[in-house]
Amino acid sequence: MDDLLFILTYIAVAASAISGALEARKHQMDIVGATTIAFVTAFGGGTIRDLLLGRTPVFWVVDPGLTITTFVIAVISFYRLEYVSNRFLVFADAIGLGIFSILGATYALQLEISPIVAVLMGVITGIFGGVLRDVLTNQIPVVFGQSTELYATCSFIGTLLFVLLNATPLVNILPASLIGTLTVFSLRMLALRFKMTLPSP
Amino acid sequence: MDDLLFILTYIAVAASAISGALEARKHQMDIVGATTIAFVTAFGGGTIRDLLLGRTPVFWVVDPGLTITTFVIAVISFYRLEYVSNRFLVFADAIGLGIFSILGATYALQLEISPIVAVLMGVITGIFGGVLRDVLTNQIPVVFGQSTELYATCSFIGTLLFVLLNATPLVNILPASLIGTLTVFSLRMLALRFKMTLPSP
Amino acid sequence: MDDLLFILTYIAVAASAISGALEARKHQMDIVGATTIAFVTAFGGGTIRDLLLGRTPVFWVVDPGLTITTFVIAVISFYRLEYVSNRFLVFADAIGLGIFSILGATYALQLEISPIVAVLMGVITGIFGGVLRDVLTNQIPVVFGQSTELYATCSFIGTLLFVLLNATPLVNILPASLIGTLTVFSLRMLALRFKMTLPSP
Repeated sequence: MDDLLFILTYIAVAASAISGALEARKHQMDIVGATTIAFVTAFGGGTIRDLLLGRTPVFWVVDPGLTITTFVIAVISFYRLEYVSNRFLVFADAIGLGIFSILGATYALQLEISPIVAVLMGVITGIFGGVLRDVLTNQIPVVFGQSTELYATCSFIGTLLFVLLNATPLVNILPASLIGTLTVFSLRMLALRFKMTLPSP
Repeated sequence: MDDLLFILTYIAVAASAISGALEARKHQMDIVGATTIAFVTAFGGGTIRDLLLGRTPVFWVVDPGLTITTFVIAVISFYRLEYVSNRFLVFADAIGLGIFSILGATYALQLEISPIVAVLMGVITGIFGGVLRDVLTNQIPVVFGQSTELYATCSFIGTLLFVLLNATPLVNILPASLIGTLTVFSLRMLALRFKMTLPSP
Repeated sequence: MDDLLFILTYIAVAASAISGALEARKHQMDIVGATTIAFVTAFGGGTIRDLLLGRTPVFWVVDPGLTITTFVIAVISFYRLEYVSNRFLVFADAIGLGIFSILGATYALQLEISPIVAVLMGVITGIFGGVLRDVLTNQIPVVFGQSTELYATCSFIGTLLFVLLNATPLVNILPASLIGTLTVFSLRMLALRFKMTLPSP
């Protein structure tokens, strides 16, 4: 299970780094911009979570492996990537959204934060990498747009399910995490497939 | 006194949440954007204060009541609010500016931070919710504009007065807080009434 | 040595405060905007470093001297500065880049963070003041632009050299700091002189 989580985390971080570097290229940035945007996209949500919870030094500061991986992927993506399947990026991003959301809620629950705030912490971990990426590229965050397919909502529902399952005596944290992550992932893929958006006022 | 502070804080947070949700609607955001902007407007200043001072987990993480209130108000404002009196918003926002400023300085003084930095911490608590709201909606912060009526200035003067009163042996912290809050509030209402702005270079 | 560092830090902070205040004037901000942009430019990088490392209260909260200096310089620059030599600003900014970078890495090494992340922490300290300034003035950060002369790169190379020298038993931390700072500074001046930029994809 730990090995699986490890591999999935690196897939998620890699996807964030690639999409961050490509976003930077689209905005005529240089490699400094590309690596920064890659870092911010991959680590932004978890960093904000760690700061809000007081878990410092933040996670990537104490894990050089993640930092080096992101750096290398960002450099290669920026200079060498001619083509990347959008299907792969979307798929890996959805895995990342699932993992990051459940991890965020887990860390909050470890600190005996209230379940409601733990769900919020999961959503923040899942979406704020992209929010910070958009702020640094001078755009209104995509995730807030009326025509954006469900994103934070998938994170919210899956994380809520995880927190509820976790509160019951019936389910262990490992299966609860798996169910939560798969729920976020599946909802996101469904939302994209069926172009589901939130109702406007 | 504690009950009064409690009620006033909720009024201030409610006003921030309403104005945040309406701002999000103006920028064609969905409900995810609206609740995020509402949270950021209501909690942004206090969050930055807590992070700078090292008071973690930050205040709203350990107070689910505030989080739920803001969420509910944001959802209702976004979907149902046809009309809200601008007078009410401005009035409640000025109360919030007063409360947040004095609270910010109080927390800094509790950590035996120097009085000058405590005043600064009050101003940061008072104005950075709005600053972050404007950053996330891709605007130059309104509070920095030359044609904006005194805002940070009111917070600065009232908080300075509070810190000075607090340093004298004559006044207790409770009356000092009250005088400080009322000063911020009154100056802000006067600034709006008489369209007072800061001198340009 | 400590006296020299003290003087150089104040030169660097002064340069950041002046350029921040002038940037605010360019964007039609009032004095609130000018002092905020000055603070953010001067203290932003070090603040993010302190937050990521968990060094709280952050450095300027416990050093009122720096805060007052920045405030006074920002006010004077905003209202009175008719002309400032661009050569001075560029020169003082390059000193600041050098000092901030090496200081950032030093604080990280003190916490026994891995050398690679320490270098990153140096670069973050060096460049994020400018990044936050550009975010608050609603621009894509200049330091990420393809036509920007080497900036983060100078910080990276000099900080890497410092961390490597520091890891050898041959060099003490003081000479290593000096060599690192001078390397950052010299590279930056050379990059400007010869309009050196990073290769585009």
